Amino acid sequence: MRIGLLGCGNVGDALVSLIDEEADAIAERSGVRLLISRIAVRDLTKPRRSQNLAGRLTDDARGLVEDPDIDLVVELIGGIEPAKGLIESALRAGKSVVSANKELLSTDGATLHDLAASVERDLLYEAAVGGAIPLVRALSVSLAGERVHRVLGIVNGTTNYILTQMSQLHGSYATALEEAIVKGYAEADPTADVEGYDAAAKTAIIASLAFNADVTRDDVFRCGITEIDSADIEFAERRGFVVKLLSVAERNYEGNEESILVRVHPAMLHRSHPLATVNGTFNAIFVEGEHAGELMLYGRGAGGAPTASAVLGDLIDAARGLARTGTFEQPARRHVRLEPIDRLQSRYCITIEVADRTGVMASVADVFGRHGVSIRSMEQVGLANEARIVFITHLARESDVQATLAGLRELEAVKRIGGLLRVLGEDDE
Amino acid sequence: MRIGLLGCGNVGDALVSLIDEEADAIAERSGVRLLISRIAVRDLTKPRRSQNLAGRLTDDARGLVEDPDIDLVVELIGGIEPAKGLIESALRAGKSVVSANKELLSTDGATLHDLAASVERDLLYEAAVGGAIPLVRALSVSLAGERVHRVLGIVNGTTNYILTQMSQLHGSYATALEEAIVKGYAEADPTADVEGYDAAAKTAIIASLAFNADVTRDDVFRCGITEIDSADIEFAERRGFVVKLLSVAERNYEGNEESILVRVHPAMLHRSHPLATVNGTFNAIFVEGEHAGELMLYGRGAGGAPTASAVLGDLIDAARGLARTGTFEQPARRHVRLEPIDRLQSRYCITIEVADRTGVMASVADVFGRHGVSIRSMEQVGLANEARIVFITHLARESDVQATLAGLRELEAVKRIGGLLRVLGEDDE
Repeated sequence: MRIGLLGCGNVGDALVSLIDEEADAIAERSGVRLLISRIAVRDLTKPRRSQNLAGRLTDDARGLVEDPDIDLVVELIGGIEPAKGLIESALRAGKSVVSANKELLSTDGATLHDLAASVERDLLYEAAVGGAIPLVRALSVSLAGERVHRVLGIVNGTTNYILTQMSQLHGSYATALEEAIVKGYAEADPTADVEGYDAAAKTAIIASLAFNADVTRDDVFRCGITEIDSADIEFAERRGFVVKLLSVAERNYEGNEESILVRVHPAMLHRSHPLATVNGTFNAIFVEGEHAGELMLYGRGAGGAPTASAVLGDLIDAARGLARTGTFEQPARRHVRLEPIDRLQSRYCITIEVADRTGVMASVADVFGRHGVSIRSMEQVGLANEARIVFITHLARESDVQATLAGLRELEAVKRIGGLLRVLGEDDE
Repeated sequence: MRIGLLGCGNVGDALVSLIDEEADAIAERSGVRLLISRIAVRDLTKPRRSQNLAGRLTDDARGLVEDPDIDLVVELIGGIEPAKGLIESALRAGKSVVSANKELLSTDGATLHDLAASVERDLLYEAAVGGAIPLVRALSVSLAGERVHRVLGIVNGTTNYILTQMSQLHGSYATALEEAIVKGYAEADPTADVEGYDAAAKTAIIASLAFNADVTRDDVFRCGITEIDSADIEFAERRGFVVKLLSVAERNYEGNEESILVRVHPAMLHRSHPLATVNGTFNAIFVEGEHAGELMLYGRGAGGAPTASAVLGDLIDAARGLARTGTFEQPARRHVRLEPIDRLQSRYCITIEVADRTGVMASVADVFGRHGVSIRSMEQVGLANEARIVFITHLARESDVQATLAGLRELEAVKRIGGLLRVLGEDDE
């Protein structure tokens, strides 16, 4: 099987080395002989880490995807265009495509799926979410018949590293972020990770697969970790919780009407939950199915070699598929109603800093009461002339909690409102 | 797709209900319409839990597998015969087969694989190991090109439940076993579980998939949990370990020569290892790959509904495959040299009870020394006239440890030797 590779960065480089070095072993193990025969890059003059690229490099990506000598195309360019156009051309030219492009798949996944189905070719993208963790195949094949209720995930290694460091070293967000940048776990501009954009794209892909629905990254409620401070983490841990940037895709039914709510935000997760032990740059997803029960898949969510390993698994699957002809009728992705975050029901952890004087507590409690948000527990720590108060609510509606926060902001005695944490696990009501 | 079902016990019953009730939803989600059209059982007169079986039941299993109106066969009989003959007939009659039969697949897996490849049909058995956990597909598809070094697993829910209870309630093995029987987690005759036979069969299947090798259950070194007492568990926990019945499949290279060592035995696993938090009846496997890095898959390893969910995933996969014609050339399973357990290198935890008198320690230490087994740490607890001594060794060869145990048994002062625990994780040397 002759492979054309689009893009040769970190993952592409690892893939070329992997296939060049292990082609014999891969053939023996899998029954498929792979050869990377052409590699399209933007800049032919750029120095490359891999040896033996000469003679395979081209800057004509369009020529590559239309080349009749290429059987399979791997897209590792990222972003929307030119990746989208090239994938479409490759599919139309009868080639199956393997992609690691979370931006594209979380934006135009349904369109590309339909095209692949219509030309009877595979479009596989295990590497787009969770690196080497075989979660795309689990959701799309193993659980294809399962009624999935909810998927929880830790799908961004950068933020999980930062939160783990803050927990283990009792350090600040800024210090942990700086260390992540030094270690190469975060980009110099960390926005895509710390503000939850990366996790939101992955959450859209997960929800699309789990519910066979057309969910895009813009559908995902998103809140990053920049407001989390070490006091939040310490409070959570005293209560038996950890703080994680959680990706949540859940489906609800009201009568027969189905709806989906997708969100990414920091959460207080009880330490008895299997996801609570997922630390450092590791990723995991936790699936709650009607019949399968609880499943968790855990592993390396990023990095050249793990991502290349996921691409390789897809390549073998696609190559095996090309040896067959015909296809089954793949269902188109459904349009399912998306719930806005306002409709979420959750427990919440709300931190406020108030002037420490008589009567403040009464006015704060009054704001909660007016919006029907019932307080389950409260912890107060005195600072100089101020007090830090942490509330955990009973199950409440997001819209009511947001109204409560707005009401608190109007109180003159409230100096600061901390990052909002949604609470999951253990004593879920 | 018309399905013929062989056997209708706990899992069969769950599968019939699942497909009968959710056929429309499954078709919408997966693109495949499934219908269980015939069910072969041994005893037609036995009362059945499912409604609506009438008209589908038959006692002619052979007729079912040869029936041209049946597209796919699900084998849930278990055991070697008649299951093996029926699967072979079904494959030869052009039907893909889904099986949950760990005994058969761990005995005749290579033969059945070759037959399925030669008739270009699928033989899928996700449900044979780890219930709903999609580990068979992960190893055979996602990691088909990966160089897997080692797979660790907790693959028997009964023993994991017993060990978890002993740890949490500080109770005895006998009490925990009794509770497992009462709760339906253990059979009245628990031999297959507590002596490790069930786990050994699953380990053989895992090793065959991970290394593309012909490994049968008789190749697996096996030691059960009946010798573990609560003192072993308490000792382990004081040292930061948990005790688990661990399934281990590992591959070694000496120069170019590859060998496999497969084993099931109780182990002291450091609590920082992701498998250490797998409690109760849950199962998990932990894969160490050259490129993918560390992966863990966790979930419900048994039970009617989770197992039926795994069968359903395979049915959809097989049905999609039947819509295509042709196949890729599947590599035959290799014969790889199997290392005997004697060649294992591990750290060990050895417990002995000795008469508490002068000179005993010197003679015990002498036995270790003579066999070249170096002691890393030692803990002594005095009992009336006896002492319980727990040794943890440095990395040692199994054959030397066994010789040490034989030497200790010959010492008059040694009253009892406890269950041997192999030690894994954290400070692996």
